[in-house]
Parts: sequence; structure tokens; C-alpha cells
Amino acid sequence: MHVQTLIHARWVLPVAPAGVLEHHAVAIDGGQIQAVLPSAEAREQITANEVVDLNRHALMPGLVNTHTHAAMTLMRGMADDLPLQTWLEQHIWPVEGAFASPEFVQDGARLAVAEMLAGGTTCFNEMYFFPDATARVALEAGIRACLGMIVIDFPTPWAQDWHDYIAKGCAVRDEFKRKDLLSFSFAPHAPYSVSDAPLEQVRSLSDETDTRVHMHVHETAFEVEQAQADGGDRPLDRLDRLGLVTPNLSAVHMTQLSDADIALCAERGVSVVHCPESNMKLASGQCRTRDLLAAGVNLAIGTDGAASNNDLDMLGELRSAALLAKVTAGDATALSATQALEAATLGGARAMGLGDTIGSLQVGKWADLTAIDLDTPATTPVFDPVSTIVYAASRDQVSDVWVAGQRKLQAGQLQGLDHTAITRRAQHWRDRITEHLATNTT
Amino acid sequence: MHVQTLIHARWVLPVAPAGVLEHHAVAIDGGQIQAVLPSAEAREQITANEVVDLNRHALMPGLVNTHTHAAMTLMRGMADDLPLQTWLEQHIWPVEGAFASPEFVQDGARLAVAEMLAGGTTCFNEMYFFPDATARVALEAGIRACLGMIVIDFPTPWAQDWHDYIAKGCAVRDEFKRKDLLSFSFAPHAPYSVSDAPLEQVRSLSDETDTRVHMHVHETAFEVEQAQADGGDRPLDRLDRLGLVTPNLSAVHMTQLSDADIALCAERGVSVVHCPESNMKLASGQCRTRDLLAAGVNLAIGTDGAASNNDLDMLGELRSAALLAKVTAGDATALSATQALEAATLGGARAMGLGDTIGSLQVGKWADLTAIDLDTPATTPVFDPVSTIVYAASRDQVSDVWVAGQRKLQAGQLQGLDHTAITRRAQHWRDRITEHLATNTT
Repeated sequence: MHVQTLIHARWVLPVAPAGVLEHHAVAIDGGQIQAVLPSAEAREQITANEVVDLNRHALMPGLVNTHTHAAMTLMRGMADDLPLQTWLEQHIWPVEGAFASPEFVQDGARLAVAEMLAGGTTCFNEMYFFPDATARVALEAGIRACLGMIVIDFPTPWAQDWHDYIAKGCAVRDEFKRKDLLSFSFAPHAPYSVSDAPLEQVRSLSDETDTRVHMHVHETAFEVEQAQADGGDRPLDRLDRLGLVTPNLSAVHMTQLSDADIALCAERGVSVVHCPESNMKLASGQCRTRDLLAAGVNLAIGTDGAASNNDLDMLGELRSAALLAKVTAGDATALSATQALEAATLGGARAMGLGDTIGSLQVGKWADLTAIDLDTPATTPVFDPVSTIVYAASRDQVSDVWVAGQRKLQAGQLQGLDHTAITRRAQHWRDRITEHLATNTT
Repeated sequence: MHVQTLIHARWVLPVAPAGVLEHHAVAIDGGQIQAVLPSAEAREQITANEVVDLNRHALMPGLVNTHTHAAMTLMRGMADDLPLQTWLEQHIWPVEGAFASPEFVQDGARLAVAEMLAGGTTCFNEMYFFPDATARVALEAGIRACLGMIVIDFPTPWAQDWHDYIAKGCAVRDEFKRKDLLSFSFAPHAPYSVSDAPLEQVRSLSDETDTRVHMHVHETAFEVEQAQADGGDRPLDRLDRLGLVTPNLSAVHMTQLSDADIALCAERGVSVVHCPESNMKLASGQCRTRDLLAAGVNLAIGTDGAASNNDLDMLGELRSAALLAKVTAGDATALSATQALEAATLGGARAMGLGDTIGSLQVGKWADLTAIDLDTPATTPVFDPVSTIVYAASRDQVSDVWVAGQRKLQAGQLQGLDHTAITRRAQHWRDRITEHLATNTT
């Protein structure tokens, strides 16, 4: 066999099947994985235009960030140590009202994409205004993305009312739908911020076109209590009444889960997207990840936006997920290293409807790959590379990244992205936001 | 004034007082801080043999890792996803019984010290066998350490019984007591592993010589329940009865805290050393850090050994501490970024009896400094450098480290440590341990 690229690695972690392959190689052609086999066999059977030797590295599927708001990276560290509603209503929403624009979203998405690719993330599940701007950035950078067609009850610089949100979202999808790197979901913001009428419309459009629905659900106890205090159902029950609790639903956060909620999610094939660091930082609560997995629910992991986390570091996030699961369940076996790695790759792919095309190193899938150099004092010795990656490795050890077979990071250097220009634009927005806040609080 | 070294930084974070000094400089001579002043003034008033410009960096006190077992770094990732007692009794203790030796401790401590210095840690509070080997490594590397004179009821390769542990520990202290970089504590392992007689002897010696006591206390609910099931007191009450609950006590873990325990710690001036990632990974429990701070208890942060954490990354640990505090308390204002940074520096210094000599950038203190380069996509923009360091920066951004004015890390490169030799020795021990485990489980 002759292929474009042949990558030899000290360890290959295919995720599906789980486990570690020592001294294996991955052959790539046409942007897709053509073979995963022992290096010795690959050297005999396969010729390649380019051969890459990663003899200190683990090679695994690219990380899938299953919930983020890329442009919010411009608000990283703008408002910390605050509870969700205060943070959102008194800090984030006012600044978004003043600044959200195609230019803001473009610059924020570029900063986010640079951070994600450098940290080994090859695909992100996005929810934000001006998704066309983010789509253009993803294509320009060559990162995979599922763009949320956001819907929220109140007007923003992106759209005036729910009809306008849905129409604009669908127009963006129509503009970009032929791009291999892009997919689209409906993204109603949250039960507390989207009324029944737009949710019914989302359900109808989702059913007709088999489109996924990406939504914050049960992020806090306050959200659930408030819905009930207002005489309504629990939010998940309301979504069920509206027909949205289906295999197309990716429910983000889910810190408030009764046994019945978990059973419902399992029965309906809902994916749950866990954002442990955001939930911890905003004191939102703890998702019962062990119980979800035990019930057979597909679990994915997201960083949330950098305004709440405050980074887009999926390696850090999957470690936090594993650690938080154990202390939440009072069970040190909860969310093992192997389960955490699957959630951060294949689980995310499934939650985006891409379980057949990305998320594991299997023949026929897109060659979305991340290599991690484990030869540092902080990751020595290696007894099990899965443990080392989940519990010890840090984002700076991500050395090489491919998306659909295209190299996006080489020996730690971003390819084709201008790091200096990107950070300069971010500093420009920080100065404008700081000035705005100073003017509006005096 | 003429000094040895003058360091200009974009931001200086003295910790005491809390806050951020923009465009400031730190002047160092004789290993100690001589001045902290605006860079513009420093350029007029101070000449130096060496001038260092850190114009993208935050300069702060070196991180203080207030609880670790350095040599256990050789067992990093050897046994994961297990509860504390299984992990300790079936994995860690048997391997230690087979391998603990001066050579093992020397090689493990070198690996640990390389990781700690590279990650911005300038001082560690140690508890392990063969403390003389660790002392030699600390002196050779030029890192500050407080060495625990360990005491445990059962025999190990280091000592046969409690008299032997105490005698050997005191002999090590006598050998090294004139070294500026080293200090010593008594380190009775834990209430469940040390009987009354050795604890009484420790109390007596501690009182006579005003020596600190470094001990695991209330690490798990099981520990507390077991003590009571055996007809005894709660472990903290037993320590109190034995006279050990004094300002000299640094109680590590403390995941089981009643309101009365917190009041007792506050009244007696006990320091609590919080190890959030170890507590999470072993499902040990959650320390009530917010309530401890509210009661006025000195809080410090430790990584624990790399066999349980699985790293010695204090930047990661202080972030985990801040995040875990919020979700534990259900309060997003708990353990703010400023409080977490103080706990990881000055809080640790106080817990080791070094509050007057390290832990903050104040004139007359040792020049133990860490610089963090914030000019990366993942830490842009910077609204507040304290937030950026606590919630977004990663250990690879630590660029420069000084201990007592001596440069130990320069532009990310360890000075005077042979990284290749250190990791090669760790791989040697991994091979020996793996072989031993294979032989002894078949």
C-alpha cells in the first residue's frame, strides 16, 4: 500500500477498541485512516510520501471539545469568583450586548482555535452568536466544528427574536453545509431562556432534518427550583413534553439529575456533555457521571467557554472530569482513565452525531489525531500511557496534531496561524472592554 | 544601591500585600530581596551585576508544595482508580517494602525535584523514608525543603520500630541542620498508623525544640469511623488529648471536619494542608477550605505524592483547590484566586514555620521567585494576572525560577540538572517494579 502519511508512535491509543498498542503505526490517505498496524509490519508493507516517527509519544484520536463558546475567549478572566446568574446577567450579557459583532466573534474564535489546536483538540461543538464568523475561522484554520444555530428569547446583536434566530441559523447552515469540516446543530440556549414556541419549532425542524440539538440543561439547582417555583415542570420534563428528549439531544451540564432523569436519558439515547471545571468554578454542582455511564448514557466532555473555565484545555478538563467523578461518587473507581479518555474523544463524537466518522483510530474514519510527548520529568515513568495522559500530562506536551490528515501542529508549533496577530487582536478587545466597563460603572 | 540581580517584570505579585504591581522590579543581593519598586525608579536608583527583563511575565513568590513524598514519583501511575486503603495496602506498601532504599529515594527525589523546579515550586514539605537521601538531592539541586522525620508503627527498610525511626530522623537533622535550604519536622505518618507512645515522644521532642509536626489527619471518613468503631476518640480529639494540637501542627488532608474541629484548629493555630487532587482521585473527600479560611485557619496546599495525584504540579493543584472549594461550599466566591495564590505560597511557608523568611516578595526574605510567561493564546487576554495564573496558566509557562537568588530555571530550561539521566533512572526503576509485580502476582 502507498499512502500520503505514515505515522509511527511508541504507543497508539485507538480508543475503540480501548487499550494500548505498542510500537504501532497509523497510515493516512485522502484525509482518512487506511490502516492501524504494528510498526514492523508497516515498514514492510506500506510506503508513504511522508513518514513521521514519534518514538517518545502516544498517538490518539484528537480531543473533542463537546461544549464551548469560542468567541467568549476574549472575556477570559474578565469576571471570576462569581455565581452563574450574577456572572451571566451582570457581567457577560452586558459586555456581549455592547461588543458582539462579526469582528468580535472572528477574533475570539481565532484565539480559541489557536488554543484548542495547540492543546490537541481537533473538533469543537460550538454555541454562539454570528456562527458564520466562527465557521469561516474554522475553515481557515482547518479545525472540525459543529456550529450551533443559537436560539434565545431576547434580542442580541445577532438576531431580534426567535424567528430571526432560527432563520439566520438555517441560512448559515445552508451557506456552509457542503464543507466536510463543518456540521450544524440547533442550539436553543437553555430551558430558562427559551420559550415553548421556539422550542416546538426547533423540535419540528430537528425531527424533519435529523439535526442534533445542543442545549444547556439543568446547569444549576437554581434553574430547576425556579422552573418549579414558577409553577412549571422540571426543565428536563418540560423538554420531554415538548418532544426534545430524543437521541438527537446533547444536554450540557446536567448537574441536577434524579434517578428518573438518568433513566430517561438512558432510555431515549440522550448524550450528556459534562463541563466539570465550569460547574466547579461557578459552583453550579456535580454531574453524576458514574451513574450516567452505569446506566449506559453516552458521556462527552466540554470545556465550556473560557470566560467561565478559564481555558479550552481538554487534557486538563478530562483530568478534572475523572477526579471530580470519584469524589462526587465517593468511589475511586468512578470514571477511570480509560472511560475519561473515551468520553473526551469518541463520546464527544457521538454527542455531535459524528460517532461513525471521528473519535477513534479506526479504518475509514477521518485522520483527526493528537500526539503527546511523554518524555518529560513530569510524565516519567510511564506504567500505562492512558493513566499518564489522563492523570499527569499537560497541554504543552501535545506535540503534533492532524485534522483530516492535515498537520495543524508540528513539534509544538501551530501551522498556518499567526500567533502574534491573534494575541494582539485579543489585547485590543481587552482594552476596549476594560474602557467600556470603566465608563459604565462610574 | 548596587545588587547582584535586578529583575524587571510586567507584573509583580508580592502576595503580601495582596495585589498586582505593574512594571515593577525586584532587587536581590546575598540571596535575599533588597527592594521591590517601580521599574522606572529601579533603573534610576539601582545598579546590578545582572539585569533580567521579563516583559511578558508575572513574577511571584516560588510555589510551596506543603505536602509530598518526593521519592514516590517513581511510582507515578503504578496503581490508579483505586480507593486509599486498597491502593496503600495492596500496591504502594508492598512495592515500598521491596524497593525503598537510599538509591531508590535518591533517584525518585531527583525526578521529583526536576518536576517541581520546572513547574515553579521552590520549596517542598517532605515525608518519606531515607530523608538523608532526599536532603542530599535538595542540596545538590538547590531547592528548599523541610524534611519530615517519619515515624510509623511498622518496620520498613528505613527503620525497625518507633525508637529507631525517631533516632534515625534526629540523626539526619543533626547532620544537615546548618544548611540554609533545609529545615526539619517530625512526621508521624497518621493517627491510624502511629500509636500513643511514639506520638507522646514526638510531642515531647516537638515542644522541647519548637519543631513542627507534619501529619496526615482525617484523610478519609473510613479513618474517623474506624477509630471510633475501635472504641477510640475521633483522631483529631486523640491528637488533642496527646498534646499535639498546637501551632506547630500541620494537619494534612482534613477531609472530615466538623464545626468543632474547625474551631479547635482556629483556636490552636493549626495549619491545614489541603491536597485537593489526591483527595479527589482517591475519593477521600472534600476539605472545607472556605470554612477554614473564614475561621482564620492558615491554609496551605500540597500535591501529595505523584503516586496518588499523579503529578507535582502546584499551578494545577492551586487551580483544583480553587475550583473544588467552590463546588464543595456551593459558593462561587469560595477560595478566590487571590486566596488560592496565598495558600500556595505564604500559607505553605507559614505551615512549615518559614512564614518570616519565604512565601512573599518582601524585603529581607529569601529570593525564592517564580516567573510565568503569560504571552500565549491560552492566557490571552489578561484582565487580572492573578486570575490568569490561578485559572488559566499551565506549568509549561513557568519560565524562570530562583531559589535564594540562584537561578534554577532559565527560559524554561533546568539549570544544573541532567534531565536525560534523571528520566533514564526512573525508567530503570519502572522496569524493576514491573518485573517484580509480574513475578509476585503470577
